[in-house]
Amino acid sequence: MDIVEFTPQPDEYAWTFGGAAPVRRIRPGTALKLWTEDAFCGSLRSTADLASASLTMPFVNPQTGPFHVEGAEPGDTLVLHFVELTPARSWGVSATIPFFGGLTSTDRTATLQDPLPERTWIYEVDTEKQTVGFQAQGSDFEVSLPMEPMLGTVGLAPAAGEVRSSLVPDTFGGNMDTPEMRVGATCFLNVNVEGALFSVGDGHYRQGEGESCGTAVEGAMNVVLIVDLLKTPGPAWPRIENDDYLAVVGSSRPLEDAWRAGQVDMVGWLGSLYGLDKLDAYQLLSQVSEVPLANVVDANYSVVTKVPKRLLPAADVYSGIHRHLRDLAATL
Amino acid sequence: MDIVEFTPQPDEYAWTFGGAAPVRRIRPGTALKLWTEDAFCGSLRSTADLASASLTMPFVNPQTGPFHVEGAEPGDTLVLHFVELTPARSWGVSATIPFFGGLTSTDRTATLQDPLPERTWIYEVDTEKQTVGFQAQGSDFEVSLPMEPMLGTVGLAPAAGEVRSSLVPDTFGGNMDTPEMRVGATCFLNVNVEGALFSVGDGHYRQGEGESCGTAVEGAMNVVLIVDLLKTPGPAWPRIENDDYLAVVGSSRPLEDAWRAGQVDMVGWLGSLYGLDKLDAYQLLSQVSEVPLANVVDANYSVVTKVPKRLLPAADVYSGIHRHLRDLAATL
Amino acid sequence: MDIVEFTPQPDEYAWTFGGAAPVRRIRPGTALKLWTEDAFCGSLRSTADLASASLTMPFVNPQTGPFHVEGAEPGDTLVLHFVELTPARSWGVSATIPFFGGLTSTDRTATLQDPLPERTWIYEVDTEKQTVGFQAQGSDFEVSLPMEPMLGTVGLAPAAGEVRSSLVPDTFGGNMDTPEMRVGATCFLNVNVEGALFSVGDGHYRQGEGESCGTAVEGAMNVVLIVDLLKTPGPAWPRIENDDYLAVVGSSRPLEDAWRAGQVDMVGWLGSLYGLDKLDAYQLLSQVSEVPLANVVDANYSVVTKVPKRLLPAADVYSGIHRHLRDLAATL
Amino acid sequence: MDIVEFTPQPDEYAWTFGGAAPVRRIRPGTALKLWTEDAFCGSLRSTADLASASLTMPFVNPQTGPFHVEGAEPGDTLVLHFVELTPARSWGVSATIPFFGGLTSTDRTATLQDPLPERTWIYEVDTEKQTVGFQAQGSDFEVSLPMEPMLGTVGLAPAAGEVRSSLVPDTFGGNMDTPEMRVGATCFLNVNVEGALFSVGDGHYRQGEGESCGTAVEGAMNVVLIVDLLKTPGPAWPRIENDDYLAVVGSSRPLEDAWRAGQVDMVGWLGSLYGLDKLDAYQLLSQVSEVPLANVVDANYSVVTKVPKRLLPAADVYSGIHRHLRDLAATL
Repeated sequence: MDIVEFTPQPDEYAWTFGGAAPVRRIRPGTALKLWTEDAFCGSLRSTADLASASLTMPFVNPQTGPFHVEGAEPGDTLVLHFVELTPARSWGVSATIPFFGGLTSTDRTATLQDPLPERTWIYEVDTEKQTVGFQAQGSDFEVSLPMEPMLGTVGLAPAAGEVRSSLVPDTFGGNMDTPEMRVGATCFLNVNVEGALFSVGDGHYRQGEGESCGTAVEGAMNVVLIVDLLKTPGPAWPRIENDDYLAVVGSSRPLEDAWRAGQVDMVGWLGSLYGLDKLDAYQLLSQVSEVPLANVVDANYSVVTKVPKRLLPAADVYSGIHRHLRDLAATL
Repeated sequence: MDIVEFTPQPDEYAWTFGGAAPVRRIRPGTALKLWTEDAFCGSLRSTADLASASLTMPFVNPQTGPFHVEGAEPGDTLVLHFVELTPARSWGVSATIPFFGGLTSTDRTATLQDPLPERTWIYEVDTEKQTVGFQAQGSDFEVSLPMEPMLGTVGLAPAAGEVRSSLVPDTFGGNMDTPEMRVGATCFLNVNVEGALFSVGDGHYRQGEGESCGTAVEGAMNVVLIVDLLKTPGPAWPRIENDDYLAVVGSSRPLEDAWRAGQVDMVGWLGSLYGLDKLDAYQLLSQVSEVPLANVVDANYSVVTKVPKRLLPAADVYSGIHRHLRDLAATL
Repeated sequence: MDIVEFTPQPDEYAWTFGGAAPVRRIRPGTALKLWTEDAFCGSLRSTADLASASLTMPFVNPQTGPFHVEGAEPGDTLVLHFVELTPARSWGVSATIPFFGGLTSTDRTATLQDPLPERTWIYEVDTEKQTVGFQAQGSDFEVSLPMEPMLGTVGLAPAAGEVRSSLVPDTFGGNMDTPEMRVGATCFLNVNVEGALFSVGDGHYRQGEGESCGTAVEGAMNVVLIVDLLKTPGPAWPRIENDDYLAVVGSSRPLEDAWRAGQVDMVGWLGSLYGLDKLDAYQLLSQVSEVPLANVVDANYSVVTKVPKRLLPAADVYSGIHRHLRDLAATL
Repeated sequence: MDIVEFTPQPDEYAWTFGGAAPVRRIRPGTALKLWTEDAFCGSLRSTADLASASLTMPFVNPQTGPFHVEGAEPGDTLVLHFVELTPARSWGVSATIPFFGGLTSTDRTATLQDPLPERTWIYEVDTEKQTVGFQAQGSDFEVSLPMEPMLGTVGLAPAAGEVRSSLVPDTFGGNMDTPEMRVGATCFLNVNVEGALFSVGDGHYRQGEGESCGTAVEGAMNVVLIVDLLKTPGPAWPRIENDDYLAVVGSSRPLEDAWRAGQVDMVGWLGSLYGLDKLDAYQLLSQVSEVPLANVVDANYSVVTKVPKRLLPAADVYSGIHRHLRDLAATL
């Protein structure tokens, strides 16, 4: 297996999906060992660092990539299997940002109210216990929370010649901010341009479903993933397979449209896997789906439609590539 | 403990929250042993029974109740602990209904398209294996799914003199359709009228999160619950506690508003339980919440914001009444 | 023509659609001369009267009615033609109310931000010039605005045994808050219960489209209307005809659903008036509709779909009853 | 005044805002005489030409431009005054497109229903009467409608390095599809990149508010506009001034967010024009705004908040540049 290591310099970050020159060309089957900077570009390092003073818009959520996958053509399926996600710093950080987040007015859900106060929280990483520490600032409450590393942002160049900010989730993946994007997950994305041009970033040491305040426990991350390519039609929306679930991530606004889009894709997926007509697949989904929110804070909101494998017969999912990559991962 | 048994005759069903005379007056601390009819009034009994021909609108989703709780006054907290939910028939049923459901246009999300075809599915109950059987109709696929009984509808008389259809979820509870309303759950509702006037119904033998097609595996249910009353201020939105989670159910449209409402209530709840200020509670919630959808099909959509107890220190939740009722339930 | 005069005493106000006993029984063809209190119950009389201290929830938006229309049966069409709307006070009033309005977070679009400050504005009525006077409070700006009286709330008892707050707009009409409900308008509503049980209220001396801050220039109103009844099927959503337009008012959330519902009803209306199939009516509507917002602040949002009569051939709209009532109005 | 004429060849069309090389460099104060192709690229020429067979996605809605405005820097205000919009063909065209439009499910508001049938309507232009002719296809109804030419799409390069499809409306303008973009309108846009890089297209011979079916009476257009530049801060959202109104166009989803964004910008605008504090401007807007929908069919929905000049004192709007350009236009 080819193994490519890459740690971007600050001037090598990608800020968009599409519109950035590839940092490396790789072949399908390559394992990547990457480093990703946190969404704040490492600029929030203490509780005294407030977002509005520390961030330089629009330079947030830097991506590592894009990677050009040789042979990838529009309509193919890019496959990314996440092998390791390891915090690359001894602390993570979260913050409230004026007019950003789920429980505040924003530039879109605009009101005339004053913004919420800014505050920054530093979460110390305890590598041994695999926890991050939350410390309240308005009182002396503190609690250790399990580390559950994930990537907020995984995506590739959009269709129709568009270039999108790394803050956006959509059909091309991007800033979906779902805890499902963790070790053991295999992500399937439709290729829109030659070479696919995917990138990853936005490491979260842990995140609740919805990412309420707009930021997770953000942290630089060491990422190991295996890249593969299927010359079969890519999905309408990002799909994820892990040992326990099939999942689709829909992203749109309002939130019900994010849900509808992912659900309709899952109806089609179940239909093709089990030979079900549309109504039967709709019915089956109605009784078996688990539907956690991913984010209600980004440029589009994201909802995950999951189907537990344990409830259904074994199926031939993308020719078994998830299991294949999982086995391969064990050899790294 | 007082134990009251009640099986309504068809002319005793309640079709609304508010606006119905109480069927029984009970004291706080009473256990109720009830029977609830299914949401179709038992009118769909084979795959040949289609909804539009079999249902008599608006007489769907019949409720068992309302019950007048002695001493309950506006602003109090009604407490319902679910002890047993046992299918009362050997089959459950689900159906597509024209212009109703999540993946079809409706009277609100109105389009000019033709409705989806109607279809009815009968799920045989296997009491021994505790499963319900799904049988596709467009192919020969079939699968047994675990029985996971829950109540789709739990609510009390609304505020402001309103009377709402049993199809509606809102601050008064009602048709929330969340799988969290299962055995072991303690539900907290703000009392709006003297006597609280709560009722329950809409048994589901199992349901996916979101209730995609608009109907779960609907079935008549034997329900045992314990009713209690706290003379402390009721919550803005229905709250649920079980052994593992604290939860709030927000219901509104669009779906993000259902989420926002429940999240803001949870921020307040966490704040009061742990002495956190608003920003700290917001931050903590952002990293620990689990947010499954309940329904995206009813008059309001419902989203559940859950906080896992395992992540947080023990707290004094409603004076420990959940544990108390759980222990009491074991004596029934 | 029967003429019935009615000025409610405070204990005769209706606070809901449905659930209130009729104040009068009238025959179709009756003219009503009514007085309506303002939405604040007359409790805001100076800029020192702030809403949260002066209002007694839920006793706001008092309605004059309901009126029982003899012979009205479910499925009929109630017809209300507005003949005169005359301010009944020398001043109108508007106010910001905490967490109510379009440019603030609310109990549904919930955020953690502080509410906007409360402020009350008194608008002096100049009867001669037919204006109301706006006076800024943070500066010395003032301007006279044309009086354009309308009724924010016109509705009848809902279907399915529901009782709804007078703050709600829906298929039964209610708190639609559209400036189209002015002198010369004929409103068509589907009857849901025997006697129709309609009521009116919420006089506005003027209102912008959307009613941004949640309140118009609210004022007590002298109202003259003629009531009629058609034994033809009532519309799905409230319809309005005036000399220049046909209109449908859809009410729901999110705002696009309010629009969709009204548009689909208008497609059907145009189709039946001009013998157009669904696609042709959709196409024609796409090129001729005018779509002003009504409210983005109430329990449901309301959008008006209007079609200018001048663009289309003359049509037989409800057997010409609008013109008939208009002529009759001239005789009063 | 510099006058620049430009008619793009098909290989010179721009399909995006941002990401396209300028076709011309012009100085502020230049008049442009342009030709714009219709949104279908001229491929629908008879009722037998159906969209799905005739269009080559994503090559729709071709733009004429972009134009590099010398001296334009990020944060400046680009000013476009529309002098003439003259149909460049003797016919316009509209069509239903599968899963596109306001009264159908779409890729976002996804359902499992079949698409609406495709149909194409040709509108003959009567230059003398200044009408376009609608002919029903399911019946023999026909009607002539006044020509009211407008541009659906006016925008410039987005911020943050994004490149957006010409189908998208947002803060950079783009595919807003508002009938307000007609002769006599002066449009103000915030410059995001050096040179502004604006383009125009999507001529409509007429359009209803909302653009219900997704397409107006689309037609190639001869466009005359004057370009100017103000070295004052650009607006958050596109603004329009004409002789009668000030307007802001907000674009987002759900529709209420498009409204909120535009309303908040208008509150700020009124505040700065008349020295009003935030609450007074909010109040005044609440009583004077007119709020027609623009589109409920595009990637974002658009809502126009208009304030009638006749209701307010004269104000110094962008140093009177609208009147200046209007006078200048008369000399062309």
